[in-house]
Amino acid sequence: MADFEEMWRDLTPVGRSASSGGYFRQPWLSAELELRAWFRSAAADRGLEVEEDPFGNLVAWWGPVAGDGAVLTGSHLDSVLDGGAYDGPLGVVSSFAALDVLRSRGVSPSRRLGIAAFVEEEGSRFGRACLGSRLAVGALSWEEARELTDRDGVRLGDVVEGGTSTLLDGLSTYVELHVEQGRALVDLDAAVGVGSAIWPHGRWRYDVAGRADHAGTTRMEDRADPMLTYAMTALAANKQARLSGQRATFGRIDVRPNGTNAVPSHITAWLDARAESSEALARLTGAIERQARERADRDGTSVEVTRESVSGEVSFDAALRDGLAARLGDVPVLPTQAGHDAGILQDAGIASAMLFVRNPSGVSHSPYESAETADCLAGVAALADALAGLVAP
Amino acid sequence: MADFEEMWRDLTPVGRSASSGGYFRQPWLSAELELRAWFRSAAADRGLEVEEDPFGNLVAWWGPVAGDGAVLTGSHLDSVLDGGAYDGPLGVVSSFAALDVLRSRGVSPSRRLGIAAFVEEEGSRFGRACLGSRLAVGALSWEEARELTDRDGVRLGDVVEGGTSTLLDGLSTYVELHVEQGRALVDLDAAVGVGSAIWPHGRWRYDVAGRADHAGTTRMEDRADPMLTYAMTALAANKQARLSGQRATFGRIDVRPNGTNAVPSHITAWLDARAESSEALARLTGAIERQARERADRDGTSVEVTRESVSGEVSFDAALRDGLAARLGDVPVLPTQAGHDAGILQDAGIASAMLFVRNPSGVSHSPYESAETADCLAGVAALADALAGLVAP
Repeated sequence: MADFEEMWRDLTPVGRSASSGGYFRQPWLSAELELRAWFRSAAADRGLEVEEDPFGNLVAWWGPVAGDGAVLTGSHLDSVLDGGAYDGPLGVVSSFAALDVLRSRGVSPSRRLGIAAFVEEEGSRFGRACLGSRLAVGALSWEEARELTDRDGVRLGDVVEGGTSTLLDGLSTYVELHVEQGRALVDLDAAVGVGSAIWPHGRWRYDVAGRADHAGTTRMEDRADPMLTYAMTALAANKQARLSGQRATFGRIDVRPNGTNAVPSHITAWLDARAESSEALARLTGAIERQARERADRDGTSVEVTRESVSGEVSFDAALRDGLAARLGDVPVLPTQAGHDAGILQDAGIASAMLFVRNPSGVSHSPYESAETADCLAGVAALADALAGLVAP
Repeated sequence: MADFEEMWRDLTPVGRSASSGGYFRQPWLSAELELRAWFRSAAADRGLEVEEDPFGNLVAWWGPVAGDGAVLTGSHLDSVLDGGAYDGPLGVVSSFAALDVLRSRGVSPSRRLGIAAFVEEEGSRFGRACLGSRLAVGALSWEEARELTDRDGVRLGDVVEGGTSTLLDGLSTYVELHVEQGRALVDLDAAVGVGSAIWPHGRWRYDVAGRADHAGTTRMEDRADPMLTYAMTALAANKQARLSGQRATFGRIDVRPNGTNAVPSHITAWLDARAESSEALARLTGAIERQARERADRDGTSVEVTRESVSGEVSFDAALRDGLAARLGDVPVLPTQAGHDAGILQDAGIASAMLFVRNPSGVSHSPYESAETADCLAGVAALADALAGLVAP
């Protein structure tokens, strides 16, 4: 059976860009399909049965089938565009490795244990983060989700069958291991930490409409250039977030017609914003929107802001969190600014927890994301301990 | 034989977007190929022989073959992305209609008269404006041009044969009719005007490099976000151009990886700048570049500026210009801020002139570009008069 390092080596080339070294693992495209095949093969090697729901979420099950109180671990396999190797796959690979540890210790689970790979966690293809887990718990309806389209206009409804998921029925607990996406564990000199909460966060789509014009012949004062409104909004977002200690980013933009010698007619851009409380998030996004509208008035353009998805604060299950931290030797407990499937499951009433593995670069959603092998193995050991405490107490 | 209005109706649907009403006629793609076929058919209907050079420039010839001193008219068939119907095709269609007028008057040309369709005038596919005419006069070498690539990575050298053009050998004069791209003729209450000069103008590519990061977990102060540098540069370009009465536009941008929850790693954006003199253009672009570099220092990013193409001021042939204006009844004489093939030919020593047709919207490079039929017919009459004076004086 492949151990952690062998599994990790197997995944390393899948979807990696030769030029940037980053990963392109968008759901239901070739690299991610290869990872899904790998998941099925890792499960088969271990005699685990794989269940797939009508949205493409996968769970490999071990242990008694009957009864409630099942425990789930795992993470996701997809990446952002040009992302790192660890965000997602580290949790899935560590789950298989942790299950191997439990078996090697002769643990006989009294509850069913599953390893999950939730689909489209990043929202990099259909624009909705944690798409698979939201659908699985019913936080997002299939009627709404099936109309989501990717950048090429492909509908989600044409990619997966859809319907109703019973994958998480009878589930009591979820533990997700994830590479840390900041520098807290580096500063605390700890290989592993336990998650306390997820900041409120969301995505807002800005549609700025102006008027296409010739870039040479149209006098500056006769233009209605949406690029100016967008540029001021991107700067305002950064400034507001800096001043308030929160986060705001414009990382994606779509310009029409996007020609060198044409004043654009329309710009669509996406604001990613996160804050320590829902009130702080509302203040932040409100201030950005106000500045965008003021600038639009000056530019003769118009701004439409669409709230695409907003997640409130998630506090992970307190008893589970404190139990894990204690069992793992009083490891640090820390919040995260990133959304995770564990947050969706916690919100849906499934006691959830997260383990974080130190990331020396502190960088994520980037080819520079990293983790030392020793820390990954410490993560596997911690996850195995955590799961042992849950399925064979 | 189809008259002006009939020819115009034939071209109207070709490459038109059902959603925006704008035109997508990029060279050697389906709509432009259809226009080239139309050109050959319009020439055949008139018994004109079409010559195509190894770059894809077309000329339909009428009159005696031997001898120097040939006269050329015409324009181009390609459009910017989501452009208007008139920019380019109006000159080509008017040329065929003007030739019909000369024939109906029984004019027998003493010099050869050609109708040209220069290829990739807009630079919307391979990024070099007036590509076809530059290659035809030798202002751009095939060795350099064949390596140009479009957005999909297709090389120009894989699209056309290339080599040496003899299409313009022995040519003495070029007259290009074009829709006006501003509001001057509207203000002057004139259907037709004569061009005096083309402003110096060019394209500069800005490459801004930063570091990809997670949009949620990376503190604002730890980022190196090229979007901020770009946004400030776009605002600076607009401000500098407004203050100096010149033109500067960022209408095209390419963001990597362009994901909502990722701080970008790299931004490429194109500056289009134009000014009334070469000195004013250098001051303008220098000021923009300085502000970009200052902002990059603050953002922890880096900026590389590549001069992709710059054209100096072009003054059209004075005798030709004054003769045309007088012959057409002292019509207005005005400069243009837009580059044209006529500027390339003038620079190459071929006496060139332009006729402009009033554009009520004043808008160009946009679906809203327009011209009244009566003004178009006035343009045809003016062009016929101008050509009669040249080929049958």
